[in-house]
Amino acid sequence: MQVHGTAYRTIWVDAEGRLKVINQQLLPHRFAIVELASVTAVCDAIRDMTVRGAGLIGATAGYGVWLAACNAPTHSVAAFESALLEAATALRATRPTARNLAWAVERQLAAVQQVPDIAGKIACTRQTAQALADEDAAFGQRIGQHGKALIAQLAARKKPHEPVNILTHCNAGWLAFVDYGSALAPVYAAHDAGIAVHVWVDETRPRNQGASLTAWELAHHGIPHSLIVDNAGGHLMQHGMVDMVITGADRVTRQGDVANKIGTYLKALAAHDNNIPFYVALPSSTFDFTLRDGRDIPIEERDPDEVRIMTGKSLTGGGLSLPLHDEAG
Amino acid sequence: MQVHGTAYRTIWVDAEGRLKVINQQLLPHRFAIVELASVTAVCDAIRDMTVRGAGLIGATAGYGVWLAACNAPTHSVAAFESALLEAATALRATRPTARNLAWAVERQLAAVQQVPDIAGKIACTRQTAQALADEDAAFGQRIGQHGKALIAQLAARKKPHEPVNILTHCNAGWLAFVDYGSALAPVYAAHDAGIAVHVWVDETRPRNQGASLTAWELAHHGIPHSLIVDNAGGHLMQHGMVDMVITGADRVTRQGDVANKIGTYLKALAAHDNNIPFYVALPSSTFDFTLRDGRDIPIEERDPDEVRIMTGKSLTGGGLSLPLHDEAG
Repeated sequence: MQVHGTAYRTIWVDAEGRLKVINQQLLPHRFAIVELASVTAVCDAIRDMTVRGAGLIGATAGYGVWLAACNAPTHSVAAFESALLEAATALRATRPTARNLAWAVERQLAAVQQVPDIAGKIACTRQTAQALADEDAAFGQRIGQHGKALIAQLAARKKPHEPVNILTHCNAGWLAFVDYGSALAPVYAAHDAGIAVHVWVDETRPRNQGASLTAWELAHHGIPHSLIVDNAGGHLMQHGMVDMVITGADRVTRQGDVANKIGTYLKALAAHDNNIPFYVALPSSTFDFTLRDGRDIPIEERDPDEVRIMTGKSLTGGGLSLPLHDEAG
Repeated sequence: MQVHGTAYRTIWVDAEGRLKVINQQLLPHRFAIVELASVTAVCDAIRDMTVRGAGLIGATAGYGVWLAACNAPTHSVAAFESALLEAATALRATRPTARNLAWAVERQLAAVQQVPDIAGKIACTRQTAQALADEDAAFGQRIGQHGKALIAQLAARKKPHEPVNILTHCNAGWLAFVDYGSALAPVYAAHDAGIAVHVWVDETRPRNQGASLTAWELAHHGIPHSLIVDNAGGHLMQHGMVDMVITGADRVTRQGDVANKIGTYLKALAAHDNNIPFYVALPSSTFDFTLRDGRDIPIEERDPDEVRIMTGKSLTGGGLSLPLHDEAG
């Protein structure tokens, strides 16, 4: 999507063949691109949250296997494959609960097995990494097209230029994926098709990813939005100021129970109470068919410091502190 | 209630006849008592939020009229009463929407009218100020006794020493009144009667009065509690970790519609969805019998900076910034 008038993905290989990512630790205060030059750099970037979000973590791990292949010993296939397995173990250990990460690494290892020679294996890891990233972006693009049709239906009931008001919770935009995102993909698709939209962005305590990431990416793509505290959504719904809610999901059970960022349940209750449509946007990989009841989804308990301590800049512009932690989702 | 082992009210006249208040601007980081030596100092303290909360603002204004009487000219009743009226106008202008404030000032002026001589009028303002403060404390104490009975019923279903888990939203404790408070009065009464309680304290964005005031007063009175983000309450209710909810109220209509700090509605929906009792604790002065429908209660729109800017201390202990604004309630 757009940043300073240029279309970006969250991860890409530049014209000189260098792997680049947006340093998400510094958002929204600074937009910085960093190169990841080795699998060690990729592991560090996943571990320290330079990259975050399920889709993006998976894509980054895929490229990590490619970098490992580029730097692996080439005197024997056994030594080459041993180096690759070592890299795979290191990548998996960075965020043990991130399911897309393990899945991307497995897919790389399986693809490499199909090619006999080392040069072919190296080329294969590059192709597979690219395919993983392209598939993630394509997921988001298709979610966007499906969701755009729903937004268009609501827009048809509005006066000309009157925006469709969409509430979202957390960051499920392009920054969490390779491009487009899940919850925000329909918003981007509608906006790009000329439909007037306005997004209510929940601050999303405790980590404020709505305030720091969702608001940032909407602003840079030129989409009208308002940052609100998590308490405000119900009141806005009571007063007819919300036309629909779209959130992402961390996991969805086979009966359709959704786990997402804490507080999503409260917004769903308020949408129900006010007869407002509530959509969950997700790629099929988010389904967990091994579980039926949402109460069986394990819920991570996070560091108390995420409630006690705020991060950001001081009013005088100094003192930019980095986030302490992040979640896998 | 208790601070450092001593029982305090939020406002009192000390043994030397000096009016003292707790400087609530500095909580929770610093406990400081300041003297208000004139009606001008009282006006400043109400305006800059040294004192806040409906009950406390009313009581402080009552004492403000007493200080004005002490310093008014005594050469004629007309000059004395003129000075008192000027003070009343200044007090009312500090927080125009604070209904308890105007009510306390009116009651002082009416009482003074009943006394012919100046010395008697001065004594009357002191007595009326004290009566206003004592009545506010008595309201809270009686709310506490009513609420304690409800908590005791829930405690009777628990195992010995297993606490009753009570969720609250915003600050409706003794700091918002002269003593005891509204929502927290039952908690204090139950605790002091030996009933085991544990309070889930909503952070209460945007101004974090739960985090900065409710948690502080519970900690100092020795009541077990946990600070949670506003998003967490629904999840705790779904998992059986909340036995009851008690909030205060800004205004209640004649059909029982409640207006309280933003986000109270979301907690009420979650309590309903999980069959958890939800109580609103209030003195009778909070009823507005002129309104029937809660949607007719005017809702104040506050400064966007309350969402953009956080106040607090830096991790190194420096940089204590003061709150920017506060609400009348």
